[in-house]
Amino acid sequence: MVCGMSQALLDRAHAQQLDAADPLRGYRERFLLADPSLIYLNGNSLGALPLATLRRMEVMLREEWGTALARSWRHWVDLPARAGDLVGELIGAAPGQVIVTDSTTVNLYKLMSAALDARPGRRVIVTDRDNFPSDRYVAEGIAAGRGAELRMLAADIDAGPDPALVGAAVDEDTALVSLSHVAYRSGALADMAAITAIAHRAGALMLWDLCHSVGAVPVELDRCDADLAVGCSYKYLSAGPGAPAFCYVAARLREVLRQPIWGWFSQRDQFAMGPSYDPAPGMAKFMTGTPPILATAAVEEGARLLLEAGIAAIRAKSVRLTGYLVELAGAWLEPLGCALATPRDPARRGSHVTFRHPGAERIAGLLAARGVITDYRAPNRIRFGLSPLTTRFTDVWDAARVTADIIADTSHAA
Amino acid sequence: MVCGMSQALLDRAHAQQLDAADPLRGYRERFLLADPSLIYLNGNSLGALPLATLRRMEVMLREEWGTALARSWRHWVDLPARAGDLVGELIGAAPGQVIVTDSTTVNLYKLMSAALDARPGRRVIVTDRDNFPSDRYVAEGIAAGRGAELRMLAADIDAGPDPALVGAAVDEDTALVSLSHVAYRSGALADMAAITAIAHRAGALMLWDLCHSVGAVPVELDRCDADLAVGCSYKYLSAGPGAPAFCYVAARLREVLRQPIWGWFSQRDQFAMGPSYDPAPGMAKFMTGTPPILATAAVEEGARLLLEAGIAAIRAKSVRLTGYLVELAGAWLEPLGCALATPRDPARRGSHVTFRHPGAERIAGLLAARGVITDYRAPNRIRFGLSPLTTRFTDVWDAARVTADIIADTSHAA
Repeated sequence: MVCGMSQALLDRAHAQQLDAADPLRGYRERFLLADPSLIYLNGNSLGALPLATLRRMEVMLREEWGTALARSWRHWVDLPARAGDLVGELIGAAPGQVIVTDSTTVNLYKLMSAALDARPGRRVIVTDRDNFPSDRYVAEGIAAGRGAELRMLAADIDAGPDPALVGAAVDEDTALVSLSHVAYRSGALADMAAITAIAHRAGALMLWDLCHSVGAVPVELDRCDADLAVGCSYKYLSAGPGAPAFCYVAARLREVLRQPIWGWFSQRDQFAMGPSYDPAPGMAKFMTGTPPILATAAVEEGARLLLEAGIAAIRAKSVRLTGYLVELAGAWLEPLGCALATPRDPARRGSHVTFRHPGAERIAGLLAARGVITDYRAPNRIRFGLSPLTTRFTDVWDAARVTADIIADTSHAA
Repeated sequence: MVCGMSQALLDRAHAQQLDAADPLRGYRERFLLADPSLIYLNGNSLGALPLATLRRMEVMLREEWGTALARSWRHWVDLPARAGDLVGELIGAAPGQVIVTDSTTVNLYKLMSAALDARPGRRVIVTDRDNFPSDRYVAEGIAAGRGAELRMLAADIDAGPDPALVGAAVDEDTALVSLSHVAYRSGALADMAAITAIAHRAGALMLWDLCHSVGAVPVELDRCDADLAVGCSYKYLSAGPGAPAFCYVAARLREVLRQPIWGWFSQRDQFAMGPSYDPAPGMAKFMTGTPPILATAAVEEGARLLLEAGIAAIRAKSVRLTGYLVELAGAWLEPLGCALATPRDPARRGSHVTFRHPGAERIAGLLAARGVITDYRAPNRIRFGLSPLTTRFTDVWDAARVTADIIADTSHAA
């Protein structure tokens, strides 16, 4: 790769030029990021704190909770649906199909259970062996509880599940196909439209985990005819650690499906507190207990900021950022034994870039000690999360340079 | 009742004397309560905002999330257990048996499912027809999903479920008895030791919902030999709207039970992200997805404040507050057609007092318009929640006086 890149393009000055030309460069100032020496490439684990969210939390705490107290429930009660519709705009879902509630794990449980109930007689859940642990474990638990079968795709970890592999795995016994849109380890981006169509041709429902795509990659759930989706809000959505997740149920399925955790926030005419459960119409049915109000307001703020920037502009910068890191890595890291573990084709990847190196855990630790925050994923991967609203091209350059220095030093020491 | 109370005791000056002599009077200043004209008697729905929590949220937002970012997970990862142990101190649970996680509804689902799995061959869940809606609906959903039976106690709503009624309902087919410690409508306090013993004699497990008792009433889970418990954190625990709930599993059952929602935060050696689910030891097994960190920190603050005041002093004041309201109501409200819907015996009630009146909903609305926040519960009840750390005796006097004026006016107008 080094041959393809002129020396001038490897200079830090080039990164500075890219930053100067970046139409989203002003967004970084909309986040706290208090430590100017920190190079934070872990927004795909925990997104930075938007200043609007800081202000909103002050209002939520002092005014809505502290002063108005329980009277605020008048408008809080609709907040999960309002925040859901904003998230819906980011993921190509028309209003009324997304609600902010619970964790991704709990939402996976509710939707997978509902999907199996909706396909009586079919007993197979298809997922990928490298799907995120909660996605696999929740499916494993549901399969164990129902005597269903969990069928694991043996997709290439770096490339992610491809349509042909899914096509070979589904059959007339498949109730549900459950996959991540962007793979958490490699950053590989799945072909949502093609895979959804394959699941449907087999008569199965399709569930997408959008944790690593929402807010970074254009998602078109309605257009892809997706059935179900879940996603978290603490990565590119920047709603804070453990902020609530969301779930999407296509309008055509919303009134048909029934989820297993029958809580009072999913009850029709909730405050009548009637004798028997009667699921509410619309997405409220997919709620459970009292929603986490403050963190749901943070989801709203995070979604607003992303919508203001625009998902097309975000994606364009994401592709440039990841492409730049791939190029620099070709020049500096691949010669030092780092293998790119993310698709080279920008159309096939999300917003993080992963490398395999036998010393990955140690390298990630040394990077952190030098103020470059990345993410180690067992057994041998380092992820560089590039958040389009906060990551600069100079951050990418600096991180790649420090990584190369560390590996060179480590190799000499060894 | 009016005959038993001298005129001097009905004067507002007496309430002022009671406030002056209140050993917990200084605690009110530890909360925001920005509007001095507000009489807030709805802390049993949403507790007031502690100033320590306001400060802690500032640190959580600016420093832990905004500045340290994902590096904070090093200490956040244990926060649900640390907060759980603090809550455990309030409810008579030795360390390692309580974890802060999910909502009360989701915790009910996990623990009820686990309980039924632990009693194979038994197919009955006993609960009360006036248990809180989520408690009933979750049990109804689990029963529907498993072909189990939900057996409803027909307890007197105002008196709550008594041991004899539970004794008559349990048999060799009972897997679980699930009841609230303090009834949400009447405030009736159940006899935890006696009822738990009855459930055990039938071979059933016992689950207590502590939503309306944690932080207001002494709870002795370990001493009562309770098996399972859940509770929310946004009432007397003052952790904010929709803050996470907690669950308790007695140490003797902790490693035996298995909950149905297999998420990555309940996985042994979580970051190995291994191929199959293997539940973590200890209470982590009862977690699901990524925990809501900021609100969990608020649970910690709320629990600390209650522990500092001491649950014995809290209970003593609670009994005095509710007793005072019952006395004033005897003089002013019962003659106007308000019926006490809470046990007269202070040993049999929690920290809220409920009245039945045909115009309850209208009265609650008129009270709110005059700055007295109570809570209407269908079809004909008004709850006055008396939070020992924030409610003054003068608040009780003022609220009772305004209520009497409103009912008198309404009656004249009618």
